[in-house]
Amino acid sequence: MTSTDLPPGSPGPASQGPPPPVTIFPILRVVPLPTSYTTGLTPVLISPDLEIIFHQSGRKVSLPSDLARSIKRTTNRLQQTQHQYLSPTRGAEFFLSSASPILTEVRLVLDITAGEKVASIAKCAHAEAEDRPLLEAYSLSIPLKGPAIIKAKSALGLLRGLTTLEQLVYRSPPSDVGGSGSPPSEIMAACGSLYAPFAPYNISDRPAFGWRGLLLDTSRNWIGLEAIRKLLDTMSFVKLNVFHWHITDSNSWPLDLEDRPELAAAGAYSPSQKFTESDIKGLTDYAGERGIDVLLEVDLPGHTASLAASHPEHIASANILPADPYSNQPPAGQLRFATDATTQWTKGLVEDVVRLMEVAPYVGTGGDEVNEKCMFADPVTRASLKEKGWTLDQALDAFTGEIHEPIHAARKTPVVWQDMVLSHGAMRSISPDTIVHIWQASGDAKKVLDKGFRIVHAPGDYFYLDAGQGGWMATPHGSGHGDYRTWARVMSFDPYAHAGPHKEARDRVLGGQACLWTEQTDENSLECVVWPRTAAVADLFWTGDKAGGGYPRNTVEALPRMHDVRYRMVDRGVRAIPLQPHWCALRPEQSIEGA
Amino acid sequence: MTSTDLPPGSPGPASQGPPPPVTIFPILRVVPLPTSYTTGLTPVLISPDLEIIFHQSGRKVSLPSDLARSIKRTTNRLQQTQHQYLSPTRGAEFFLSSASPILTEVRLVLDITAGEKVASIAKCAHAEAEDRPLLEAYSLSIPLKGPAIIKAKSALGLLRGLTTLEQLVYRSPPSDVGGSGSPPSEIMAACGSLYAPFAPYNISDRPAFGWRGLLLDTSRNWIGLEAIRKLLDTMSFVKLNVFHWHITDSNSWPLDLEDRPELAAAGAYSPSQKFTESDIKGLTDYAGERGIDVLLEVDLPGHTASLAASHPEHIASANILPADPYSNQPPAGQLRFATDATTQWTKGLVEDVVRLMEVAPYVGTGGDEVNEKCMFADPVTRASLKEKGWTLDQALDAFTGEIHEPIHAARKTPVVWQDMVLSHGAMRSISPDTIVHIWQASGDAKKVLDKGFRIVHAPGDYFYLDAGQGGWMATPHGSGHGDYRTWARVMSFDPYAHAGPHKEARDRVLGGQACLWTEQTDENSLECVVWPRTAAVADLFWTGDKAGGGYPRNTVEALPRMHDVRYRMVDRGVRAIPLQPHWCALRPEQSIEGA
Repeated sequence: MTSTDLPPGSPGPASQGPPPPVTIFPILRVVPLPTSYTTGLTPVLISPDLEIIFHQSGRKVSLPSDLARSIKRTTNRLQQTQHQYLSPTRGAEFFLSSASPILTEVRLVLDITAGEKVASIAKCAHAEAEDRPLLEAYSLSIPLKGPAIIKAKSALGLLRGLTTLEQLVYRSPPSDVGGSGSPPSEIMAACGSLYAPFAPYNISDRPAFGWRGLLLDTSRNWIGLEAIRKLLDTMSFVKLNVFHWHITDSNSWPLDLEDRPELAAAGAYSPSQKFTESDIKGLTDYAGERGIDVLLEVDLPGHTASLAASHPEHIASANILPADPYSNQPPAGQLRFATDATTQWTKGLVEDVVRLMEVAPYVGTGGDEVNEKCMFADPVTRASLKEKGWTLDQALDAFTGEIHEPIHAARKTPVVWQDMVLSHGAMRSISPDTIVHIWQASGDAKKVLDKGFRIVHAPGDYFYLDAGQGGWMATPHGSGHGDYRTWARVMSFDPYAHAGPHKEARDRVLGGQACLWTEQTDENSLECVVWPRTAAVADLFWTGDKAGGGYPRNTVEALPRMHDVRYRMVDRGVRAIPLQPHWCALRPEQSIEGA
Repeated sequence: MTSTDLPPGSPGPASQGPPPPVTIFPILRVVPLPTSYTTGLTPVLISPDLEIIFHQSGRKVSLPSDLARSIKRTTNRLQQTQHQYLSPTRGAEFFLSSASPILTEVRLVLDITAGEKVASIAKCAHAEAEDRPLLEAYSLSIPLKGPAIIKAKSALGLLRGLTTLEQLVYRSPPSDVGGSGSPPSEIMAACGSLYAPFAPYNISDRPAFGWRGLLLDTSRNWIGLEAIRKLLDTMSFVKLNVFHWHITDSNSWPLDLEDRPELAAAGAYSPSQKFTESDIKGLTDYAGERGIDVLLEVDLPGHTASLAASHPEHIASANILPADPYSNQPPAGQLRFATDATTQWTKGLVEDVVRLMEVAPYVGTGGDEVNEKCMFADPVTRASLKEKGWTLDQALDAFTGEIHEPIHAARKTPVVWQDMVLSHGAMRSISPDTIVHIWQASGDAKKVLDKGFRIVHAPGDYFYLDAGQGGWMATPHGSGHGDYRTWARVMSFDPYAHAGPHKEARDRVLGGQACLWTEQTDENSLECVVWPRTAAVADLFWTGDKAGGGYPRNTVEALPRMHDVRYRMVDRGVRAIPLQPHWCALRPEQSIEGA
């Protein structure tokens, strides 16, 4: 406890002199931080019967149904939040410093400047990455008197503004904070009401990057629909916009396709641990309504051993023991991509996935960690290569060309891991529009950018959420993917570090994402592993180098925001971990290195 | 999926030859592993109307009420468990290999060989550490026919046997495992029933160490009673027997003493985040009934800044800014232990704690990380030292002698951190019977043993559960307490490594414990951080060097047991993390390094 907790008249520590004045940081505790804003120092009370009116350039219009539902959710959340300002007196200081706090009903006017027909949030969410920042832009003002207004060019922009509003308001401080820290009686009468401490607010906001994502692996350990929906809710709360669903891998095949029921029947962990097409469509709709695109990834041809249970004829070196060196982790087994039969079968599989993901602009085909030893240990593969006179890379090129065909045919864009353009020579099959995920090391971004591709940052050295869980192969040594990546580590990343000065290359940096590989994570620990760290990813790729003064981000500035968003998550029932002792969360200015 | 998952007649991978036979490991998947056991290969079905009869050397007697409640809990758990054997067919292999599985009602006979009056579990739990192993010893037999029998010399021994029984049984395999992996129809008729796969069982068990614990810090972040009770339930499930409750520290003071209400009123994080005396007594009873002693630790004089909120007159350098170098972490402030007033006041505080912990044999007074700079920055301390002509260490010695007096007077034993005997010269105040916790490094055990003290291992390099969460002072660098301590790391620890060959010194190794400092943990992540790792601590200090062939423990042998106990925890609603992909949990023999 600092001396700010002491009731007035308490003797201060003899050595300290008078207690330090209460410090108010007039800063938005919003994650991601808006790229442009001004605030005042006056708290305004938000009436609980908040009314939200939708205008289109001054005219009332009907809303897209998903925007209507989003508004209702925001209204409910504002009514339900119990979140108080994080300071020793939980916000009472704002009412001390304000002689006559303004009690006003805040009506929220949503103003959309789009044309006659307003597209749904979901439609905006599934736009191409480059088009998203404009669609996500909004402005939000809360004046001292009169209605608060959110303006945007799209329903998605309004959603982002509503989300910011949710992070601006606090439940009024408790009546038992004691002494001169108590708000005056007229405020106490409004106890339980909401307020925003720093009116007037004028926020003008727009993301720096159109791809701000989270990868979830649902193959190594099962994560069910309800957990994923809750994850999407929280992603939307920090304005993340891509759910990269690494749905299958060598451990299990939960993807239950209607025309290929045998895959999940044999490859899922259990009959209840499958995702049906209806599940996936439902989840894509759920994500879209929350401003999130779904990138469904079926990782081919390397991470497919789980297909051996249903289609052993398509898998090379299935279950070969020991798995090492035929696979980076057990079990071994990869698609026989050098054969026509397997290539055509896999193409059909991708066609099904493309059909399933009708609304999404991108489809992921993976392509990482193709293991040569696994292939050469397979007589069928060796015979096929010999017959065609191909190298393994040539076979991979031909295979990739075939499986990308249905993606291009549907006017979608393939998304692959960096191996596809860095590890197998010249792959003619990788079309120039392909989006490439950096994963092995952050420095690889330069190599891929130099080849002219668009990239998404997902390097393990900054963004692997599973790092820090230790090795998992039953030995005392080994550290999995290395040290835990703290939120401050995330914020030290520079998205443009490897892009050089030229706009052309910088424009090909679409954004970045956190990755959660689930060797040691399932629903029991999912939220603890993801939150609030991934909010730092959201902050980094939303703010770009516009807010906070470039890279590395200013973590001293960000600490109170990260605490605030974490406690807000807990207030919503999300099991986000504390970043520091609660004492520190109440006094972030005293809780940084050197303080 | 391995080929053992394939339906019969499925074509195997061309390169692999015939599928490998189903391997059955006739091993107890029990954590901690009993120190002596034999098993057979015959599954016996356990009737759902399990009847437990309590005998005392053949005569029926009345049970201590806490044993009666424990038996009821075991019965309920056996009825409720849905846990299946972890293998690709979830245990169906046992029924394949047994031509005529034995369906028998297993009556459980508890036989206690103690005298006329049977002491309660709680009374045994609060025995001295050296006396516990005998009280915890039991034997358990499950023959092919006739009743299963648990024998022990005490109610606590019976509890340990019941706990082992809970880990021996599995719910029968699902009917949809398919193909030849299905159990025969007479077994299917018993579907939903429990079985133990390796009858006949003959287990004779007793712990190597009498102190097998878990430390929980409830000051840095709040952890409430319900979460602690659930933690105690799971501790009891792996036979841990000491709950080291680090109840207060510099961040908050949740200890609400009846005669000192001001401490928690000002020092707790909020009015609802306090432990009343009634809470603490209730929790001590709850623990005792589960075979767990409570070591309540009030960490003096170094970790007490939270007392400045109620008693600034007793705290040196309270809230001095920046906290560094006056404290290892914010906030600064320590008891003015060089003054008579503070010493006598603190002695009274310890008296209250001793009175509160009436049933416990030990009381913790901490004593780590006394910061000299913090003391010398305090004019009151400087004046007192000058007046008495003392060094700071002499003052600390006098203070410690005073605060240990009420502990000795109550015939209890003080427990301190290693600093008290290693960092302040000769401390005459530390009586030879004092128990010393090793924390800074495992090698420090030798130094403390050489001074003749009894020790409990709790070194950060093996047992700090908070390690691996990364630095938390808002900088990208720093790694908190270093790498994550995996369960395999825990098992590589040798309790006798620094004790030398002589029995006298080895007998002064009381055991060990995991420590959870809660800078970055609260109720949201508590179970994920603790479980199942802490089961490895339980295994290590229960088995000693008797089972598993010395140190380091055989993690290949332990892996299937660790998986099993983890899934059992999840079955009980505990958020224990997965140690590997689920695929590996079903095939541990293929999931170790080199496999």
